[in-house]
Amino acid sequence: MSHKPEGFKGMATPKDTKKHAVVLLSGGLDSATVAAWLKADGFLIYALSVDYGQRHRVELNAASKMASWVGVEEHLILPMDLRPIGGSALTDPSWPIPKGGQEQDPVAADIPITYVPARNTLFLSLALGFAEARGASVIGIGVNALDYSGYPDCRPEFIAAFETLANLATREGVEGKGFQLWTPLQHMTKVEILQKAEELGVPVEQTISCYDPDASGLACGLCDSCRLRTQAFQALHG
Amino acid sequence: MSHKPEGFKGMATPKDTKKHAVVLLSGGLDSATVAAWLKADGFLIYALSVDYGQRHRVELNAASKMASWVGVEEHLILPMDLRPIGGSALTDPSWPIPKGGQEQDPVAADIPITYVPARNTLFLSLALGFAEARGASVIGIGVNALDYSGYPDCRPEFIAAFETLANLATREGVEGKGFQLWTPLQHMTKVEILQKAEELGVPVEQTISCYDPDASGLACGLCDSCRLRTQAFQALHG
Repeated sequence: MSHKPEGFKGMATPKDTKKHAVVLLSGGLDSATVAAWLKADGFLIYALSVDYGQRHRVELNAASKMASWVGVEEHLILPMDLRPIGGSALTDPSWPIPKGGQEQDPVAADIPITYVPARNTLFLSLALGFAEARGASVIGIGVNALDYSGYPDCRPEFIAAFETLANLATREGVEGKGFQLWTPLQHMTKVEILQKAEELGVPVEQTISCYDPDASGLACGLCDSCRLRTQAFQALHG
Repeated sequence: MSHKPEGFKGMATPKDTKKHAVVLLSGGLDSATVAAWLKADGFLIYALSVDYGQRHRVELNAASKMASWVGVEEHLILPMDLRPIGGSALTDPSWPIPKGGQEQDPVAADIPITYVPARNTLFLSLALGFAEARGASVIGIGVNALDYSGYPDCRPEFIAAFETLANLATREGVEGKGFQLWTPLQHMTKVEILQKAEELGVPVEQTISCYDPDASGLACGLCDSCRLRTQAFQALHG
C-alpha cells in the first residue's frame, strides 16, 4: 500500500525479506529517485520501461542510463505501441503539447491533454506480470499526487485500488505473499523529490522529464513538466 | 458490474444509451459469443485482440473472422509481446502444454501452468484505454468462473475490483458516465455458452479455443480447453 510519509526523510522502504522489486523506470527524475531509493535500501531492482510510442523517445535512452547507474538486475524495455489507441497529446502527433502553462483539454477542463487513457493502469499491469514472473513482491512507481493532481491515475485512491486488484489478479496474490505498491513520492513536493534525489546521488542532469524534447534530447523548458522541474531547481539552488 | 444471470436466457445486456462497446476478442467461442450478444442488442462493437506472442497464433486469424462476421466498427489487433516477461506455458515455448487433463504447475497446484501472469489485468487495461479513446462505456469480456476457476483473474471478485479501478483510473470514470464490465458468461456452463452461441448464430466451427493447435489451425483435442469444448458439444449434440 502507498505510504503517507510524515516527513520524507523518515519514509520507510517496504518490508520484503527477499528484497526483489520491480520499478517502472521512465527516464524522468521521479522514477529514477524511486529506483535509487530501493537500491539504497538493499533491494535487487528489475526495471521496466515501456516503449509506447511516446513522442519523447529520448526518455528511453535516459531510462537506460538510469538503469545502468542504479545497477539493476534486468532492464526490460517492452514495446507497447499505444498510438493505434490514441486519445492523448503524448501519443498522437496531431495534438499539440501545451506550452502556456494553462492550456487544457476543452472537453475535460481539469485533466491535461497529456493524459494517456489508462496509461498507469496498463503500466502497472505490465509491472505486475513482470514482478510475478521474477518473484518480486514490491512494485515501485514514482507517481505524485501534488503536481499531477489532474491525472486520475496518479491519485492515492487509484494506487490503493490497483494494489487490491493486484492481490486478486495473480497467483502470488492468491497463494503467495502478495504485492505491495510502493509510492514514496506520492505526497512529496517537487523540491522534496529533488532534494531526496540529490541525497541519493542520482545524476539528475541525465534524467529527462520534458513532454516535448527535441531530437537531441534537449528539454523544451516550456511544457508543464519542464516548468515544475525548473521551479524546483530554482527553489532549491536559487 | 458483472451480472449474475438467474437463467442465461434472461441475461440483460448493459444499459448504455450510446451503445458503444469494446469487446476483448480472442478468437475463441466465449468472446465471439459476447460480441454477438452485444451486437444483437444493438451495440456498436469495437473489437480488441492482443498479439501477445501466444503459441496459438491461429487465434488471431479466428478473431479476425469473428470480427468480420459480427460486423464490428473497428478491429484493433495490438502487438504486446509478453514473451520477455515469460512465466507461462502459453508464452514460453520451453514449457509443455498439459494434455493429460490433470497436470498442474508443481509450484501452485491449483493454478494451471497455462496461467499468464496478470494477463486479464493487462488485457482489460488495454480495453479500458481503447474504450475511453473511442467513447465506449461498456467492456465485454468472456471470462467464465466455472470452467476456469483455477485462473485468479477469471473470478467475479477480480472483475468487480477491475471495474472499481476503471472508474478511478480514467477521465471517463472520474468526470463522465463511467465504465461497466459486462461478463455475461461468468456463471454459465460450457453447454449453456454453446447453446447461447448457436442461438445467436455464431459460426462456432470457425472459433478456436485450443491452447496448442498445429500450424494449420487444427485443434489438438487434448488440452484442457479442447476437453471442455468437446464435452460441451457431446452434451448438447450427442
